[in-house]
Amino acid sequence: MLPGLMQDRPLAIIDILRFAATAHATQEVVSKNVDEPIWRSDYAGTMRRVAQAANMLAGLGLNSGDRISSLAWNTHRHFELFYAAPGMGLVLHTANPRLPDDHLVYTINHAASRVLLIDRNMVEIVERIKDQLTTVEKIVTLTDSARTPAGYEGYEDLIAAQPDSFAWPSFDENTAAFLCYTSGTTGDPKGVLYSHRAVVLHGFAAGLSGALGFSAFDVVMPCQSLYHATAWGLPFAGAINGVKFVFPCDKFDGASLQALIEGEGVTFSGGVPTIWTMYLDHLERTGGKPGTLQRVIIGGSAVPRDMAVAFDRLGVVVQQIWGMTETCPLGVVATSTPALAARGRDAENEQIWTRQGRMMFGIEMEIFDDEGQPLPHDGEASGALCVRGPWVLERYFRSDTSAVDADGWFDTGDISTIDELGFMRITDRKKDVIKSGGEWVSSIDLENAAAGCPGVKVAAVAGVYHPKWEERPIMLIEAHDGAELSEADVRAYLESRVPKWWMPDRIFFEPVPMTATGKIDKKIIRDRHADALKEG
Amino acid sequence: MLPGLMQDRPLAIIDILRFAATAHATQEVVSKNVDEPIWRSDYAGTMRRVAQAANMLAGLGLNSGDRISSLAWNTHRHFELFYAAPGMGLVLHTANPRLPDDHLVYTINHAASRVLLIDRNMVEIVERIKDQLTTVEKIVTLTDSARTPAGYEGYEDLIAAQPDSFAWPSFDENTAAFLCYTSGTTGDPKGVLYSHRAVVLHGFAAGLSGALGFSAFDVVMPCQSLYHATAWGLPFAGAINGVKFVFPCDKFDGASLQALIEGEGVTFSGGVPTIWTMYLDHLERTGGKPGTLQRVIIGGSAVPRDMAVAFDRLGVVVQQIWGMTETCPLGVVATSTPALAARGRDAENEQIWTRQGRMMFGIEMEIFDDEGQPLPHDGEASGALCVRGPWVLERYFRSDTSAVDADGWFDTGDISTIDELGFMRITDRKKDVIKSGGEWVSSIDLENAAAGCPGVKVAAVAGVYHPKWEERPIMLIEAHDGAELSEADVRAYLESRVPKWWMPDRIFFEPVPMTATGKIDKKIIRDRHADALKEG
Repeated sequence: MLPGLMQDRPLAIIDILRFAATAHATQEVVSKNVDEPIWRSDYAGTMRRVAQAANMLAGLGLNSGDRISSLAWNTHRHFELFYAAPGMGLVLHTANPRLPDDHLVYTINHAASRVLLIDRNMVEIVERIKDQLTTVEKIVTLTDSARTPAGYEGYEDLIAAQPDSFAWPSFDENTAAFLCYTSGTTGDPKGVLYSHRAVVLHGFAAGLSGALGFSAFDVVMPCQSLYHATAWGLPFAGAINGVKFVFPCDKFDGASLQALIEGEGVTFSGGVPTIWTMYLDHLERTGGKPGTLQRVIIGGSAVPRDMAVAFDRLGVVVQQIWGMTETCPLGVVATSTPALAARGRDAENEQIWTRQGRMMFGIEMEIFDDEGQPLPHDGEASGALCVRGPWVLERYFRSDTSAVDADGWFDTGDISTIDELGFMRITDRKKDVIKSGGEWVSSIDLENAAAGCPGVKVAAVAGVYHPKWEERPIMLIEAHDGAELSEADVRAYLESRVPKWWMPDRIFFEPVPMTATGKIDKKIIRDRHADALKEG
Repeated sequence: MLPGLMQDRPLAIIDILRFAATAHATQEVVSKNVDEPIWRSDYAGTMRRVAQAANMLAGLGLNSGDRISSLAWNTHRHFELFYAAPGMGLVLHTANPRLPDDHLVYTINHAASRVLLIDRNMVEIVERIKDQLTTVEKIVTLTDSARTPAGYEGYEDLIAAQPDSFAWPSFDENTAAFLCYTSGTTGDPKGVLYSHRAVVLHGFAAGLSGALGFSAFDVVMPCQSLYHATAWGLPFAGAINGVKFVFPCDKFDGASLQALIEGEGVTFSGGVPTIWTMYLDHLERTGGKPGTLQRVIIGGSAVPRDMAVAFDRLGVVVQQIWGMTETCPLGVVATSTPALAARGRDAENEQIWTRQGRMMFGIEMEIFDDEGQPLPHDGEASGALCVRGPWVLERYFRSDTSAVDADGWFDTGDISTIDELGFMRITDRKKDVIKSGGEWVSSIDLENAAAGCPGVKVAAVAGVYHPKWEERPIMLIEAHDGAELSEADVRAYLESRVPKWWMPDRIFFEPVPMTATGKIDKKIIRDRHADALKEG
């Protein structure tokens, strides 16, 4: 090997903000906060506050590589910690307040965090669990002076007297920056330790037109939580491209979002479908219009057809997205290409709305059969979806064993197809696949079909034991308030839409259990209805 | 330092094409070639041919790190070598056919290239110099069977029987990939050895909206030579974003470009101003329209105002760009921001047309005074422009000494300002700065002012010895064919546009000497007119 002779300069997260503070100094950073008036600053101001936060953290005696945990919403202070902590060589563990207490405690202890920074309305949780936190030495509330709860120290008080510059150290780009835990429904949460290299490369790729396609004219309102895999990396991809940020705190109801969209000129947002269902309901009730909003990116679960059509009518582009904590998190985004557009508008919409997304440069993707042989990209063959690349994990935090195979592939646990245009479609979680008489039933396809039935709010499908077919699908239906919906209606709706042998053996009308990350909790469904078909 | 736990996968140039061949398989690659019919393939086809080329090169007994040289135009075969050579661990030296013979020989010998791949109409040059090439073992013409010159072996014949897959090796991302020589007007050309890491990172950054802003709906026709610093990295930034490529070979005349723009739906092109002057002349003569063409990016020298206005009237966006062989090559691109747009259309155009460009993430930029102190970003203070980042060189090929200072800054040799919006404007080459009585005259500002004078085709300014003021500016004017233009006309035009003391002491009407890269050769001007003002 002949080495090139270019500069050996490491990729560093703090350089993203330094860039934005120089080339987009006056671009705004706007934020709601718990019980506070709206916050307005810009990248230059944010850079100074980030330096103050770093000086504050340095004063606590933290050392390079130490972990600190946040328990916080989508606010500017949380955003500041996203740069301050990695910038000084610390690791930010973004704890998930939606986890059950025991899992939350587990993650903070597993991270061995020395400092915990919390939003004002997290005090109740923290009071409940703090005696179980074995490594936390200090708790800071992300509050201003006036609103710091009694007995706590507030962020604004702590940073106020700090210098607004910091001697940011330079270090290896493989240094850890973020610790994000998966919230598996089985077993303990597992930590994924993002490096500066992974976050910066992901930030480059995520901003491209084949992914999020950001420009400095975008106003980005992240409605995916900052504690979920760094909110798809928006804090980084956004700043690289100089977007205006609008942080909604924990107010994801339709009226709050609409007020920010109208008031701040939001062009881009995204999040799980639930939020956007509420938003569309709000528009319908109030006769509101999405105004400047151009794009909504949906992740976490498939886009309901109704939602896609409703946004399309309002002139808003809806795109799916797929990723996981283990992929930093972007894997694919559903963006069009000339080859797809040439098929006509309807076919294009169909593809964009029903595929998780199209491959992006930097993350390789392949599907394999049970023998480990790669399957064709024909949109039909489905197999174990595996990924590899510089923003895919190699092993979980504190694990002695690699999470990837000898060729570097990480098995996502999803079953999917890939088509000739490079679009990936998840047909199931591997553990949720229903094996009926040797054939696979896609629980996701069945759920998506049922979700289109008028009156259905959520449909969930799981496989349970069947004496003859080994497994058969059962379905849970949660109807919209006031909807008149019978089992016969659902069956009639499904009849023309799914293969006959996919028809669920039983349909239950009951609330669908959800995980802490807003996904259908199939484990609970399977446990609850384990014996539903034992008589065949 | 706590290491992150993400995959250690190297950035590799061949992965760019592998991605494009998977996710944009049917996207076209179209090319003109010397004396051949137009070529049509796509990324999937190109990937197969690149594998064939790699198998062919492997058969020549080349080893990892070996250099090969191309002497070729903008064609699909040259593009294929851009992936085949680095993909297998070789280094592609893109020799510049516009160099004087002795410089050309020097670069190929300095590179110690073992193979030379040439376009059909380079045979004359090669016959002239081949006895002086001390390391070249084999010469291949980039031709089809029918058009391979007698006594040569042709590329198509050599790859035809090769397998269309190749076991691409994996290696350190700092491995050398390209060797590009600067064509300094003084001293020997110097080699810059690009690494895979530098090229891939540059490819990510160049595609973003703050730079070239590519999407898969773009049809990119590179009119900057592939042998000039990899044509601004377009072969990589384009493929990362799945653009259609249209290669014009060596046909940069207006009619040829217009035929490709109309025939292939070109949306994006770029190059030195001379090409676009010819193109606009062609449109004016023929009454043609730019049709699908949306953007023209001008590099190499400042955009003449007339050209910017003419394109603006035609609905084509013109942007400046600045970079150098040492920066892989993009440094800045003139793209707008909300802060700039808020100043109104005229101010926005003024900024975009007259600044080299706005900073992009990944390449740091600073201006320093003579004492090495950073200067304010106020658009007024001008100083030595220094850059650093992962796609900036550390040292020249075969050099024992670093080209950067202790803080990693590479001094570009340009004098520039940076303004509060992050836009950089070059006011002079350090060596071309005119020191008149202790004050600086910007030769570039003076040239730009004169270039606006009706009838002026090219204006060149240099400083020459003056007994009283140390140096004073002289000006060369090359008029348009048939233009009636007197010295008094030029002086009258300049009077209201430049400070009085900048007025050139003498104005010569004569052809302006150009370097091999199409820049004004000030050294020749200074030598030719060294005594012009010796009497004061």
